[in-house]
Amino acid sequence: MPGILAGAIDLGGTKILSLVADDGGAIKGRDQRPTQAERGLDRVLGSMVESLRRACEDAGVGLDALHGIGVAVPGPIDLEAGVLASPPNLPGWNDVPLVRLLQERTRIPVLLENDANAAAVGEHAFGAGRGIRDMVFITISTGIGGGIIAGGRIYRGATGAAGEIGHMVVEPDGARCGCGRRGCLEGLASGTAIGRNGEHAARQGRSSALGEVLDKIGSVTAEDVSLAAQRGDTGAKEVLATAAKYLGIGLVTVVHLLNPQMIVIGGGASKIGDPLLGPAEAYMRSHAFPLLAAAVRIVPASTGDDAGALGAAALVLNRDLAESA
Amino acid sequence: MPGILAGAIDLGGTKILSLVADDGGAIKGRDQRPTQAERGLDRVLGSMVESLRRACEDAGVGLDALHGIGVAVPGPIDLEAGVLASPPNLPGWNDVPLVRLLQERTRIPVLLENDANAAAVGEHAFGAGRGIRDMVFITISTGIGGGIIAGGRIYRGATGAAGEIGHMVVEPDGARCGCGRRGCLEGLASGTAIGRNGEHAARQGRSSALGEVLDKIGSVTAEDVSLAAQRGDTGAKEVLATAAKYLGIGLVTVVHLLNPQMIVIGGGASKIGDPLLGPAEAYMRSHAFPLLAAAVRIVPASTGDDAGALGAAALVLNRDLAESA
Repeated sequence: MPGILAGAIDLGGTKILSLVADDGGAIKGRDQRPTQAERGLDRVLGSMVESLRRACEDAGVGLDALHGIGVAVPGPIDLEAGVLASPPNLPGWNDVPLVRLLQERTRIPVLLENDANAAAVGEHAFGAGRGIRDMVFITISTGIGGGIIAGGRIYRGATGAAGEIGHMVVEPDGARCGCGRRGCLEGLASGTAIGRNGEHAARQGRSSALGEVLDKIGSVTAEDVSLAAQRGDTGAKEVLATAAKYLGIGLVTVVHLLNPQMIVIGGGASKIGDPLLGPAEAYMRSHAFPLLAAAVRIVPASTGDDAGALGAAALVLNRDLAESA
Repeated sequence: MPGILAGAIDLGGTKILSLVADDGGAIKGRDQRPTQAERGLDRVLGSMVESLRRACEDAGVGLDALHGIGVAVPGPIDLEAGVLASPPNLPGWNDVPLVRLLQERTRIPVLLENDANAAAVGEHAFGAGRGIRDMVFITISTGIGGGIIAGGRIYRGATGAAGEIGHMVVEPDGARCGCGRRGCLEGLASGTAIGRNGEHAARQGRSSALGEVLDKIGSVTAEDVSLAAQRGDTGAKEVLATAAKYLGIGLVTVVHLLNPQMIVIGGGASKIGDPLLGPAEAYMRSHAFPLLAAAVRIVPASTGDDAGALGAAALVLNRDLAESA
């Protein structure tokens, strides 16, 4: 006899990932397909349900075997009303009552969580943060996001937006961030920022390796910077060192404010690994109060791209986790 | 018949404040006396017990009427062991087992909390933050400290040191803080920092009013800066504006990380009031995400110097508040 099963959908701007997971976090079924948000709400909703049905087939069960469906969506959301506000990467989606629409189509209870919080829960319930009481999850990809686990539960704050780690101010009047503000961590240390600064180094002739990339491709990504740095390119190494310093400053503030036992770092740009995360952690350890620095471990995320969907499943399977800490 | 009574002692570097409070936060008895830490541990302990006895007399009850004794102490502490580590303003107090020592002398259960967390609980239980779920308390005095209420409970973090708001980095490589690090909020916006920057302005001839103070007294305090600014002194106003900007940057980071419903601001230097707090709040409102800014109210603390002792009493009266969120 199988344990309780949860369905989970991670709705992103580019892809829909559906999982069927049991209460131990074992993935029993999976489906992934492109979002194609430009097709409009109705067809994307259809795709979401179809994707989840396919994941159920993969798991050898019907939709009706699911205890509930957790949906990770780009924030901000109105948790009480089950409404998705205006995610920047789902253009045209304004105040979508996603819980109601999905429940009508599936006849199964649906709950929403924003994707960064869901990923934090995923890492806490089934990943690197298992059993940790006070944990901070940081995802470094095109942007920087995060989620806070306080006392073993997701901490949402007043409007469910807590954990906007990318928009801590780490350099007043610093580089402009995608959000329009200046000096945000995201504008200085995200994958986007690393790529942009690599391109800048290339244009200024400070990196021959990135200059070649720029000539050939017309742009520079964080991955290009990482590869060039690995090959010893000084300009690329400087770009990573700058991002790492700002990440370190952000870590100091997180450690002083939240005194976590663990910081879990995931997201595409975090795959740069030690050349980025090593000096960031070293900066934190040399700049934070020794007692607080000694209390925190920094570890890579272990559930990869499944974190958001796994967290959404965890919230379905253990509603306690869904309560505000 | 009276309600349950708690004893509380706020042990500071300069004074011992004892209260007897009921479960509604009404203060039934009070005593205050100098700490005179230089007399050594034994005599200070004697003073603490004597002060609490006096507060009980003031309340018309005996020590044995107390449900427990909450003690607010300068951090860091070891909560589990009930041990006070090495507070900088109690020289010679190293790893003092304060819970045991006070229980031996009083035969009443004792619990410890660090003073910033206790003050946060005091404001939450009996002050400006009554009934607020997610609240941040910031105290601006010689230093800057704070405490986080998450889901109605004090959030302590891994070692009870969460809420070190004064040591968020708000200006990398900025002014040196008392903690030895650079760019901490405390080093840029505390009462000490405001006084020091006022003195600096006086020495540089940027403030005639503060120049006069410096000539007469030999030093400049935050209060001097506040008074000079009130009288229109440009240099003093600039000093306050700079501190307010850094405070605003700190508020942006707090709001983005914690998305609180309320930020309560107390402490001696916060009495400067609107000339400091007004522009700080305005900076936050114009630099934080509008949804998060709209969700938070910033209000002055309402329990004044009693916050720490009231919080210690609240922890005795409602142990639930003492559990990690």
